[in-house]
Amino acid sequence: MSRLDSFIRRMTAQRDIINFVIAEVVEIDGPVLELGLGNGRTYDHLRENLPGKEIFVFDRAINANPRSVPDGEHMILGEIRDTLAFCRPRIKRQASLVHCDIGSGDPTTDLATCSWISPLIGPLTTKGGIVASGLTFELPEFEEIPLPEGVQKGRYYLYRKITETN
Amino acid sequence: MSRLDSFIRRMTAQRDIINFVIAEVVEIDGPVLELGLGNGRTYDHLRENLPGKEIFVFDRAINANPRSVPDGEHMILGEIRDTLAFCRPRIKRQASLVHCDIGSGDPTTDLATCSWISPLIGPLTTKGGIVASGLTFELPEFEEIPLPEGVQKGRYYLYRKITETN
Ligand SMILES: C[S@@+](CC[C@H](N)C(=O)[O-])C[C@H]1O[C@@H](n2cnc3c(N)ncnc32)[C@H](O)[C@@H]1O
Ligand code: NI
Ligand code: NI
Repeated sequence: MSRLDSFIRRMTAQRDIINFVIAEVVEIDGPVLELGLGNGRTYDHLRENLPGKEIFVFDRAINANPRSVPDGEHMILGEIRDTLAFCRPRIKRQASLVHCDIGSGDPTTDLATCSWISPLIGPLTTKGGIVASGLTFELPEFEEIPLPEGVQKGRYYLYRKITETN
Repeated sequence: MSRLDSFIRRMTAQRDIINFVIAEVVEIDGPVLELGLGNGRTYDHLRENLPGKEIFVFDRAINANPRSVPDGEHMILGEIRDTLAFCRPRIKRQASLVHCDIGSGDPTTDLATCSWISPLIGPLTTKGGIVASGLTFELPEFEEIPLPEGVQKGRYYLYRKITETN
């Protein structure tokens, strides 16, 4: 399989997962946190398909297509390790969805990311809310939920918060 | 339609077109010219699906995934406007396929590209050979061939050389 083939497969799986999660999250109160703006394609997809929801986007820099840059109130610039820890006054309520696409491709960096990000994400998510991530997280107040049909295991991880916290 | 949706559609159309062209080109003698290495995904796809063919890749810089960087003999570095004009001794024979993915997104730049690239490409292609491009070209010795089914008009342009030149 060529890199073009596997790229198309990866993008399609990402969209399938996001669509699956959108259908769940539409029923749940609270904003969406998009960790990693990148080119802005998944942000654009979330925005189009969750028109009623506030979406806060986190990235250390804006390298997105100009059509997909959030307004200043919703673009949270800086290292996610710092901004996520202090964003609660800005996002006001716990999130219904945290979508996280910040894998580095380097397994050591990804392990480090998991270790600092997991304890930050738990408290920011509302009970019943979903975390969808390209990296595994350690989320004790959550249960892992199965991927939608047709999506290869290990591509994404889905967690639903089952314990209420503040 | 979100930018994620249209991106997936664009990549899928690109692959469909390349697969269509590969099936034609496998029968034709001569190397492949890949104009624009980029990430190296289409180069990887051509290489995997045309194992017998020499592929020469042109770009002003190498920004590809390390798995998809051609060897020094087959990577032609520099402005395509310069390198294409003088590559004949290096590629030796006329090409069976020229794949061109160097659209800038800016219509004025793209018109300029068409004007300098068209007269360079014609003589480099063998009779019966194919030019597949994201931009329209002006190729008097060629006929336009229809896109494979399911691919939206205007996404790509396909030309087959019908007159022999040297
Ligand atoms: C869209 S990318 C190609 C993507 C590639 N098809 C892939 O699948 O990854 C376009 C590439 O063309 C190169 N390029 C565009 N115009 C060029 C020019 N005039 N001379 C040299 N390289 C050029 C850019 O540097 C860029 O890497
Ligand atoms: Ni492969
Ligand atoms: Ni749209």
